[in-house]
Amino acid sequence: MTLAFQGEPGAYSEAAALLFGGAAVTTLPCRSFDDVFAAVVSGQATHGVVPLENSIGGTIHRNYDLLLDHEDLSITGEVQLDVVHCLQALPGTALSDIRVVYSHPQALAQCERYLRGLGVTVEAVYDTAGGAKLVAEQKLAGAAALASRRAATVFGLEVLQEAVQDYEFNITRFAIIGGITQPDANKTTIVFALPSTPGALFKALSVFALRDINLSKLESRPFRGRPWEYLFYVEVDAKSDDAACARALMHLGEFATWMRVLGTYKGWVRGSAPAARA
Amino acid sequence: MTLAFQGEPGAYSEAAALLFGGAAVTTLPCRSFDDVFAAVVSGQATHGVVPLENSIGGTIHRNYDLLLDHEDLSITGEVQLDVVHCLQALPGTALSDIRVVYSHPQALAQCERYLRGLGVTVEAVYDTAGGAKLVAEQKLAGAAALASRRAATVFGLEVLQEAVQDYEFNITRFAIIGGITQPDANKTTIVFALPSTPGALFKALSVFALRDINLSKLESRPFRGRPWEYLFYVEVDAKSDDAACARALMHLGEFATWMRVLGTYKGWVRGSAPAARA
Repeated sequence: MTLAFQGEPGAYSEAAALLFGGAAVTTLPCRSFDDVFAAVVSGQATHGVVPLENSIGGTIHRNYDLLLDHEDLSITGEVQLDVVHCLQALPGTALSDIRVVYSHPQALAQCERYLRGLGVTVEAVYDTAGGAKLVAEQKLAGAAALASRRAATVFGLEVLQEAVQDYEFNITRFAIIGGITQPDANKTTIVFALPSTPGALFKALSVFALRDINLSKLESRPFRGRPWEYLFYVEVDAKSDDAACARALMHLGEFATWMRVLGTYKGWVRGSAPAARA
Repeated sequence: MTLAFQGEPGAYSEAAALLFGGAAVTTLPCRSFDDVFAAVVSGQATHGVVPLENSIGGTIHRNYDLLLDHEDLSITGEVQLDVVHCLQALPGTALSDIRVVYSHPQALAQCERYLRGLGVTVEAVYDTAGGAKLVAEQKLAGAAALASRRAATVFGLEVLQEAVQDYEFNITRFAIIGGITQPDANKTTIVFALPSTPGALFKALSVFALRDINLSKLESRPFRGRPWEYLFYVEVDAKSDDAACARALMHLGEFATWMRVLGTYKGWVRGSAPAARA
């Protein structure tokens, strides 16, 4: 199993890949989300792992677009990762030695009050693990990075303080793409379009409500290039070929102007043992 | 009219403030979104402008959280801004001179193919306008920034190429906070919570469908600290005290475990003259 991810070794996406596949899998760093999809299509990787949404930053529409562009690839799994920013520096550094902190602007923003308290200056870098790499490779004294615990392990840094973000509940949900649908799938992600008319969404949702099927995510998005239509992302708590779900999808086809099943897969159970999934 | 925004002068948020208020308004740069809200509460600014969602990056949940935390502040207006990244450098620089490009990692990612084509190296900075400031203040030859046209004006840089992002349809929607509700309001943003049971959302949406009220945005989000409940953000195409809308909201209160109206305001009309709003 080789999992392609976007970012440097030690990135949160790599931590998600290891959480899904277990410590024994091979991970393949890629420069962009496009490259993750390309690595799976070319066979360089068996699977890809891409973030779909973060509880603070929101939905990463770019990856839904890439899923729509790649009809040959489905979502075959899900991982949810707690984003825990760790202040990390060269071994032997004391907290009081730190003058400058390197990280991605989003991570710096999520730790803003904490960093103000430390009285340090901040420097932006392209990704969180890249900041850890910089501190380690250039042996920067008086500097620290904000990145995952995994990044500290990869680059030989010491974690000075863990979970330094200003607000809790920072979770990123990742999709596993590639490979085959598992028999224990219990969740389905679909995308459909509706005209922007009163009641259109109400009718569309009736197909699930009438069959007592629960939805765990629903989001609207203006449809690119079709000003009066909306796209909807929906996650359904059922396998796509369960009888009730299959009937609901057929029924939905009567209301939707367009629709696609992006994949059916096993929903992530928090704290589940990675070994069981390897 | 003084509009507080997050970022450096020349940030996209400042461009949104000027688009809303007209060129004559005063703008007040703030370090964080929290500081924008604080500036309005303290009276340092009459209004604030904060991004709520981007068509590629998704919803900025942090600002919905801040709206919920500030019961005294409402959404009183809306602006939609086309995000147009401009490659900008010191006057007299030729495109072929550029060796390094500075910008926020998200802007760099949105222009990745373009930058690969140029064959330049990229350097991350905390915000897009900050990159323009760096190039201008340090008179960096052979360097460029990716930022708004407004940033080039503010820092005296020359735009070498405009709209260099890899994909179109990059729009950010901003909320104007503070001030009073306008009589021509025609849109209402509400947040409500529902138990995670089949059909709960269907019942909630019936209150709008039964009254032929259109929705222009709907998004679910797990409710922090309440594992089996979901928050929903909804935008309704009606003023909150229109008879049908007021009845729908009362009806919604029967299904929702919790609800709040974040504001009622005039929806943004693309291409509308800023002067008419000043």
